[in-house]
Amino acid sequence: MRMYDLILKKRNNEELSTEEIQFFIKGYTEGVIPDYQVSALLMAIYFNKMTKRETADLTMAMVNSGEILDLSGIEGIKVDKHSTGGVGDTTTLVLAPMVAALGVPVAKMSGRGLGHTGGTIDKLESFKGFSVEMTNEKFMSNVNNIKVAVGAQTSNLAPADKKLYALRDVTGTVENVSLIASSIMSKKIASGADCIVLDVKVGEGAFMKTPAMAEELAKEMVDIGTHLGRKTVAVISDMDQPLGFAVGNNLEVIEAINTLKGHGPKDLLELCLALGSNMVVLAKKADTVEQAREMLMETITSGKAIAKLKEFVKAQGGDIECIDDTNKFEKAKSLIPVYSDKNGFVNKIHAEKVGLIAMELGAGRATKESVIDLSVGIVLEKKRSDEVREGDVIAYIYANDEKLGEIAKKKLKECYVIENVKKEEIPLIHNIIN
Amino acid sequence: MRMYDLILKKRNNEELSTEEIQFFIKGYTEGVIPDYQVSALLMAIYFNKMTKRETADLTMAMVNSGEILDLSGIEGIKVDKHSTGGVGDTTTLVLAPMVAALGVPVAKMSGRGLGHTGGTIDKLESFKGFSVEMTNEKFMSNVNNIKVAVGAQTSNLAPADKKLYALRDVTGTVENVSLIASSIMSKKIASGADCIVLDVKVGEGAFMKTPAMAEELAKEMVDIGTHLGRKTVAVISDMDQPLGFAVGNNLEVIEAINTLKGHGPKDLLELCLALGSNMVVLAKKADTVEQAREMLMETITSGKAIAKLKEFVKAQGGDIECIDDTNKFEKAKSLIPVYSDKNGFVNKIHAEKVGLIAMELGAGRATKESVIDLSVGIVLEKKRSDEVREGDVIAYIYANDEKLGEIAKKKLKECYVIENVKKEEIPLIHNIIN
Repeated sequence: MRMYDLILKKRNNEELSTEEIQFFIKGYTEGVIPDYQVSALLMAIYFNKMTKRETADLTMAMVNSGEILDLSGIEGIKVDKHSTGGVGDTTTLVLAPMVAALGVPVAKMSGRGLGHTGGTIDKLESFKGFSVEMTNEKFMSNVNNIKVAVGAQTSNLAPADKKLYALRDVTGTVENVSLIASSIMSKKIASGADCIVLDVKVGEGAFMKTPAMAEELAKEMVDIGTHLGRKTVAVISDMDQPLGFAVGNNLEVIEAINTLKGHGPKDLLELCLALGSNMVVLAKKADTVEQAREMLMETITSGKAIAKLKEFVKAQGGDIECIDDTNKFEKAKSLIPVYSDKNGFVNKIHAEKVGLIAMELGAGRATKESVIDLSVGIVLEKKRSDEVREGDVIAYIYANDEKLGEIAKKKLKECYVIENVKKEEIPLIHNIIN
Repeated sequence: MRMYDLILKKRNNEELSTEEIQFFIKGYTEGVIPDYQVSALLMAIYFNKMTKRETADLTMAMVNSGEILDLSGIEGIKVDKHSTGGVGDTTTLVLAPMVAALGVPVAKMSGRGLGHTGGTIDKLESFKGFSVEMTNEKFMSNVNNIKVAVGAQTSNLAPADKKLYALRDVTGTVENVSLIASSIMSKKIASGADCIVLDVKVGEGAFMKTPAMAEELAKEMVDIGTHLGRKTVAVISDMDQPLGFAVGNNLEVIEAINTLKGHGPKDLLELCLALGSNMVVLAKKADTVEQAREMLMETITSGKAIAKLKEFVKAQGGDIECIDDTNKFEKAKSLIPVYSDKNGFVNKIHAEKVGLIAMELGAGRATKESVIDLSVGIVLEKKRSDEVREGDVIAYIYANDEKLGEIAKKKLKECYVIENVKKEEIPLIHNIIN
């Protein structure tokens, strides 16, 4: 078999066989097939697409390129959740205790990564002493005993995907739905999930800019899951404005705690219920999403969810005092209010720009070497469809550097589109694909 | 400027600017832009094509990537001829003396290269003592004095093309008319030609398999030439069977000598007249191709052409005795006749296979290191449309290894398609583009 022939085949719009896809991924991972042939194939895939079968084969070949986590020591059906990434997205911190409180095992491998704010691990480190360092046995027994544990993703999960993604990133071959879908799904499957719930974000603050694109990606991922025997559900949710109010690490953790206590932002709770109810059904702890939804709400009203968060944080060495009193979280030095200079309705909040402002304040990593400042960020006071008057506070900036804070204030104001006539509301949940 | 943006632009079907193409070729030649980005761009070009302007810019950028021969010391209009390559193609050896005899300066840089038989230099070395080693001054003065000289192509002509071609060859991005055309034209322009006559071969033994493809390539090259101020004419000629009768080095040289003496194969002479008459007109030595054709025929009947060949070979140190007596050329040990085993008409001679048989006999280079055997090859006795009877000799094999000769005999027989009903004749000249 020659890589050259695979390139020609795809270039001529023929379907690659399972063996050919395995040959390509194995050869590339092992360094036998050079980058320049792979990038030519990727560009041919960009133009001629991949069939459902090819996409599933590519996913599985990438799964098999590295370690596959063995979670068989964990009782019950392991349901993983994945978000395609947005601004102010705190769902994992809310969801994990809620579904764990219902007996659904949450065995989560998370990363730090780059972005507007830190990854799930960075946010969990807002709890002083919290650590993801533990033996495999400890991780397993934590999940079996308290139903939730978060570990650090090993770098050897789907290494082919890592290598391929790095190449796509510099050769203009990122934007192909099969390549995006297989990249996400390969990591989830290698992480040992039995079932997967996907949160596919759509809008200005998301990778997918239009509902049609998001739906295409969601369908592709659900098809891969089905093809490979992992029941998969995708929730397509709005990311045309930040989710919840908080953007920043400690700020988002406080928001998550408030939500688990029953007084969080409506949109964040609603999304957690939509995602969580599907997780609970896939884990066979409820028959219908309606039933699962009621069960999840009950974990909040009964206090079981917040108790589960404490149990989980404590089990991994974190300080839980700040869960009872969120004032104990470290605060930024300056709290800078941002005022509206006109009357009207908030018709848009440029989500991606809000994320970038948070990163510039120090909340996220611009490069791998950046150190995250857990205390800085933004809390929005007004969101889309809200009425504002001149002089109202529309948001607060939390900054440790006053100069950066003033720049952020100016920029954040520009993120708000305030107009006389209120625009039609955009639904939080666009669609659910399964 | 970033290569990444150029890839995206072409991928999204936008036109690259002159500066962007120069940036890409300069960066790639200097090794600043990596292969994997270039192959992605090439594949995007394969799918989205290049405009006439982009193609001309690419050609000129490749010309400027290396040395450009300065032929200003040569008097008159320098007309170069280029063939896209076929089997048994001896036109250069016939054409050069003919047009030089009419005062058209022929300053030819040739190569050895890979193929069924040797390159022009290999063939000229059939004349014992012939050498292409000479100073630039000697080369120039030879052209000025006797109107013809052949030198060795320096490796620094259009180095970008060389590097790009090597990459295209392994990434499935050869078959794009803009890339093929600019590759050929960049070398011709860097060789210092004022005008160019192209022999675009079409058929089984050529790179272009159909007249439509050949026409597309011819038009593209003529457009590049026009765009860059080099008047260019393309003759589209048949390569569905070998040209002339001989395939092999000494054998082709003998055939060329015979043609110059007035008793060569009809098709070879006809093609030389078609190409040559356009060269003579471009060089402004005649007003019309009809007039130029008569002048060229006269160089044969008057003996001026064969005298010019002697003058040229002698000037570069070659033995000219064998021009008077072609029996003095070195002969292969075995002469093996190939017989027809049926009656009928030759409806096809698989040209590419004939070329490969010649190479297997030792007439061409399979790798750069191969040593050419000048004496071996094939002489066809019957060509397309000829009637044959069982037992007729259809071809002779010239071999130095009897075993190889017997294999060649068997294979060559299979190249002939002999049928009861004669097929419609294919014209030698399909079209002329200018």
